[in-house]
Amino acid sequence: MTPLFLGIDVGGTNIKSGVLDQKGSSLSNVSLPTEAENGPEKGIERICEVAGKAVLEAGCQWDEVVQVGLATPGTMDIPAGMLLNPPNLPGWINLPIRDIVQEKLGRPTILQNDANAAAYGEYWVGEARGKNSLVMWTLGTGIGCGIIVEDTIVQGEHSHGSECGHIIVEMEGGRQCNTGQFGTLEAYASAKSIVKRCHEAMANGRRTTLSELSNKDEKITPLLIAQAAEAGDELAEELIMDTAKYLGVGTTTLMHTINPAIVLFGGAMTFGRNDTELGRRFIERIRQEVRERAFPVPAEKTIIEYASLGGDAGYIGAAGCAKLAYEKSRTT
Amino acid sequence: MTPLFLGIDVGGTNIKSGVLDQKGSSLSNVSLPTEAENGPEKGIERICEVAGKAVLEAGCQWDEVVQVGLATPGTMDIPAGMLLNPPNLPGWINLPIRDIVQEKLGRPTILQNDANAAAYGEYWVGEARGKNSLVMWTLGTGIGCGIIVEDTIVQGEHSHGSECGHIIVEMEGGRQCNTGQFGTLEAYASAKSIVKRCHEAMANGRRTTLSELSNKDEKITPLLIAQAAEAGDELAEELIMDTAKYLGVGTTTLMHTINPAIVLFGGAMTFGRNDTELGRRFIERIRQEVRERAFPVPAEKTIIEYASLGGDAGYIGAAGCAKLAYEKSRTT
Repeated sequence: MTPLFLGIDVGGTNIKSGVLDQKGSSLSNVSLPTEAENGPEKGIERICEVAGKAVLEAGCQWDEVVQVGLATPGTMDIPAGMLLNPPNLPGWINLPIRDIVQEKLGRPTILQNDANAAAYGEYWVGEARGKNSLVMWTLGTGIGCGIIVEDTIVQGEHSHGSECGHIIVEMEGGRQCNTGQFGTLEAYASAKSIVKRCHEAMANGRRTTLSELSNKDEKITPLLIAQAAEAGDELAEELIMDTAKYLGVGTTTLMHTINPAIVLFGGAMTFGRNDTELGRRFIERIRQEVRERAFPVPAEKTIIEYASLGGDAGYIGAAGCAKLAYEKSRTT
Repeated sequence: MTPLFLGIDVGGTNIKSGVLDQKGSSLSNVSLPTEAENGPEKGIERICEVAGKAVLEAGCQWDEVVQVGLATPGTMDIPAGMLLNPPNLPGWINLPIRDIVQEKLGRPTILQNDANAAAYGEYWVGEARGKNSLVMWTLGTGIGCGIIVEDTIVQGEHSHGSECGHIIVEMEGGRQCNTGQFGTLEAYASAKSIVKRCHEAMANGRRTTLSELSNKDEKITPLLIAQAAEAGDELAEELIMDTAKYLGVGTTTLMHTINPAIVLFGGAMTFGRNDTELGRRFIERIRQEVRERAFPVPAEKTIIEYASLGGDAGYIGAAGCAKLAYEKSRTT
């Protein structure tokens, strides 16, 4: 019997799950809404429902699943298997989610941070396959990050490893981010920040086609800014390229810390990635900033690319983390 | 026969070496001037001389030394065993130092960066003993760093891992450091920077007892600034506490990246460490900045302390890296 691994990625909006084999091939891929607002009890029922569907769709038996990997947003205590107070799962507080899921599914279960899991997915079978080390940014409302060094997931002593949206890029008079910290990368380069910077520029009298929306009381979003940039709006272009510059600064810091083989960018705020002219300009602007700031050798040699697994990275990586834990348990 | 490990730490000024057993006890501790300016050929003779003395002083035989660890400053290519162009060993360019030393000593030899080796020394038998992860800063003319995560030395894909003196703390209009990069931690918190900031403040008319030295054409040094601070000079105190603040910013970035169990500060610019009032104020100021900036859990739980092995950390850690390599070669 070849061992199989079940990955579950619990997001604020959807729960994704699938069964993978040892080589990282997906035998199933299932998604259902989380409905997190219904609370943790209903949420865990939903997790088990999605997991059940994933096993069914894979056409395997539960006892072939030797290990389950559960990925969730933080804050969390990974070794203890606890959710502490995750902003994206409001009310799921001090919840021993790993042990509950393990008991309900009847299979050994490990917990991992969702950004770390997504990074491990890209490292295992995605864009970083075959590389020894990886930094992966997930760009969205906030900025997530996952770091893998030689098969070690940098999850940190207090489950705060790879929280690189909160590295400090401007120590004096920096912008403030969601968590109240000043000068963090997230305060400059998140989706929230690009909208905020847009409003500031308009308040300062910058001309932009986006003003019309604002006058119509329509909400300015990163998507609308992207569309304006593609239509030639100067401010919109500038806001997006500034975002790339800030990400280049943060990436340089990680190249002088981790010095990974490859840096990937995933998440919603990637402007169509390599499929659009704007997406190609965006990542090229990140690369340019890195070339100007980093030491010559890593600046030249580090691969900087978009991630390739999209929204599936989380459950795939969760299954990969399950495989890691399974292999570790067999060698010790 | 219990295996022994020889550590060699090649600095710009001195070469230190000693033999250690598997538990990390030093059987010898030898030091000679590097005289790096005499070139790499003489330098390697000197390395072998120090190593020979270390084996002699330990009272062991060469064949009991199962692995040699050689630590040097970079730039370097660690897997290739090459020095590239180390500023602290001028003229030692494109030198296959590992293979030359290995042939001369007749024992298997590995190369490691000196800051990484010093960190591994503290991790193995120093202040971080028994911890799972460590960030260690070495404060001097520049700012060195070493990172250990679960026995993995973060040396990086291109031997630029843990170059955290060059993380960016001020992306807009930041100070310039030795390497020409802008806004790096080293540009703010190195010994060179504290002297530079002192001259700037005096040029701006700040009153200080240090002006007298400057008028006498005596050079202002970090040591003189420290003495002035201890004697109650306000500017000197401010310069040192600002340095601590900058280090607190850099440490916060690493707590949100690595989230280590412990952060250590070693090197010459540690103001007498816990043995002086100034040293105690210095590290307390670092801790304060971290408490203000980092996420609550790591801010509360991460230990921030001075390193304890002093100038011996390098050769001890080099021997530790040798032990790691020896154990790895026996399990694969």
